[in-house]
Amino acid sequence: MTRVHNFSAGPGVLPESVLQQCQEAIWEFSGSGLGLLETSHRSPPFEAVIQSAVARLGRLLGVSETHEILFLTGGASAQFYMVPMNLLRQGRATYLETGTWSTKAIREARRFGQIDVPFTSTERVPGPTEWGDVPPGTAYLHYTSNNTIMGTEYHHLPRTDVPLVVDASSNMLSRPWPDAAHDILYAGAQKNLGPAGVTVVAIRRELLDACDPELPTLLRYPVHAEKDSMFNTPPTFPIFVVERVCAWIEEQGGLPAIGARNDQKAQKLYQILDGSEFWQGKASPDSRSRMNITFSTGDPALDTRLHTAAAKEGLSGLKGHRSVGGLRASIYNACPPEAVDALADFMTTFERTHG
Amino acid sequence: MTRVHNFSAGPGVLPESVLQQCQEAIWEFSGSGLGLLETSHRSPPFEAVIQSAVARLGRLLGVSETHEILFLTGGASAQFYMVPMNLLRQGRATYLETGTWSTKAIREARRFGQIDVPFTSTERVPGPTEWGDVPPGTAYLHYTSNNTIMGTEYHHLPRTDVPLVVDASSNMLSRPWPDAAHDILYAGAQKNLGPAGVTVVAIRRELLDACDPELPTLLRYPVHAEKDSMFNTPPTFPIFVVERVCAWIEEQGGLPAIGARNDQKAQKLYQILDGSEFWQGKASPDSRSRMNITFSTGDPALDTRLHTAAAKEGLSGLKGHRSVGGLRASIYNACPPEAVDALADFMTTFERTHG
Repeated sequence: MTRVHNFSAGPGVLPESVLQQCQEAIWEFSGSGLGLLETSHRSPPFEAVIQSAVARLGRLLGVSETHEILFLTGGASAQFYMVPMNLLRQGRATYLETGTWSTKAIREARRFGQIDVPFTSTERVPGPTEWGDVPPGTAYLHYTSNNTIMGTEYHHLPRTDVPLVVDASSNMLSRPWPDAAHDILYAGAQKNLGPAGVTVVAIRRELLDACDPELPTLLRYPVHAEKDSMFNTPPTFPIFVVERVCAWIEEQGGLPAIGARNDQKAQKLYQILDGSEFWQGKASPDSRSRMNITFSTGDPALDTRLHTAAAKEGLSGLKGHRSVGGLRASIYNACPPEAVDALADFMTTFERTHG
Repeated sequence: MTRVHNFSAGPGVLPESVLQQCQEAIWEFSGSGLGLLETSHRSPPFEAVIQSAVARLGRLLGVSETHEILFLTGGASAQFYMVPMNLLRQGRATYLETGTWSTKAIREARRFGQIDVPFTSTERVPGPTEWGDVPPGTAYLHYTSNNTIMGTEYHHLPRTDVPLVVDASSNMLSRPWPDAAHDILYAGAQKNLGPAGVTVVAIRRELLDACDPELPTLLRYPVHAEKDSMFNTPPTFPIFVVERVCAWIEEQGGLPAIGARNDQKAQKLYQILDGSEFWQGKASPDSRSRMNITFSTGDPALDTRLHTAAAKEGLSGLKGHRSVGGLRASIYNACPPEAVDALADFMTTFERTHG
């Protein structure tokens, strides 16, 4: 079986060169005579992997001097409670609500203090200060930089005087971005960074002192920072893949090159949506995601026909999320331009046949 | 580079046939045209994987009818707080302390209630009722079935009237065992079950109703049970490997065959330790582990010489844990008898040269 074009929202497509390195490492890694899955996390070969992953992520995010890079588990959903458990401490925080995952983050945070939600929309993200001022005593402002289900994305940094926390699960390292302006960045790896099973967290060092010291050990950011993410056995293979993906990003020319390529891919699809009455884009044009293009023909039966026919032609994963229906093309970093070209051709032909 | 004999305490050796299946699946999986790392957890191919993993684990543990099998993250260390958070609820529990990891479990549990520790030893495990009765109102009894650092292991089930909880991280599925007598069994996968990055939990269904409903979502066992471990994206690749390892165990003849093979491997090494004054076994003979054989020459410099020379001859990972020193041979399920034979030959020659 040959590989097809993968538009899955996540776990998503990875660079084929990285897959080949994974295949090799699983049998024998780094001249050790051991496979990577069978290598102690305390061994020099794996220590080199995790140190390189920290260095590359710090460099790409521009936070090497200021933040600790942690490799945790439980996905972004585990950060939904770790952030407020560590930092809220019965105080208050502001959350911008822009779709399913931000709503889940709000629900978890409400267990730990007062959560203000001054903006809610599933079709767009707010302007840089649209929600007004945060109340006095606000511990942090939380936003979701890309909304995979809705297909919306921030194209400007939310402006605030309080610590800024971002769930960047679906667009971290997909473009140049003022990452260093954040106090916590977190992301489940399985979109742009690697496979499911590891969560990247970058936390500003000064913030570690403010974390609740009474939490269970593994729920405390300072413990993971002090132990270099090895309080206990970390998810070694997913971390290896993240390290290899970061190396691949750097080889591609870093975030400027990756960002330009992602812009071109997204534009190609949005031009088709805008070019005809046949298509309906779901996101407000000023908030369109470059990662997840959500759209519909306006007819659920025809949408089903499209993603079914597309799958038969080697275009996989175009069905919209079950909660909203329609169609969705997820075109993360590792989705090659040729896949988008093939999808664009397919859409053009489909419109000609069914329009 | 050829593969060497791997005596790492964990992540530990895996069956080579499983590694080959991992290599293939990473490129293209189940005729889908997608690699396994890039496959949605909600897709039919992955759903088949996780359902098969649940079925195989349920069958091997003998708990299919009675327990929910969950795939969580954070290692066994995350269970150190999840168990008491869900079940202690300010009450009391009894823990048997038999080494480093049980001590860590006790430390975490003490945040959530009163913990009674009626037995403590690093050289042996208690007899079936040696600790006496548990106090009235005890929520559960917790033990660690194999102690990787000390090299001790239970060879009988602790007898109790209260729910029984076991950290079986380093010997789950290594022998026939009354697994169904437990109310919770948990294990980080990276010894006998798979790679780092997934934790297997089997919890008796009746116990789910007793779990604290006020916890953060991902810390609640009932949520994971209701959602079949897919409240959010699970660690898909580690789960795949666990499924393949369970299939391999069944192909080998199941736990009776695996247990017999493990007994023979361990006996071969203990016979060498017992056969000469040159060697010192660390564990009390009645509590010896079949998974981690801990020993020493009695001379730290000579121990170092041994594991350094062994590594040069393709016997990797024999250095004892940094907290106790000495030597340790971890011979999990996937460690082939030929590796143990090679180690036995090496030890015999080493004794002849240095004894």
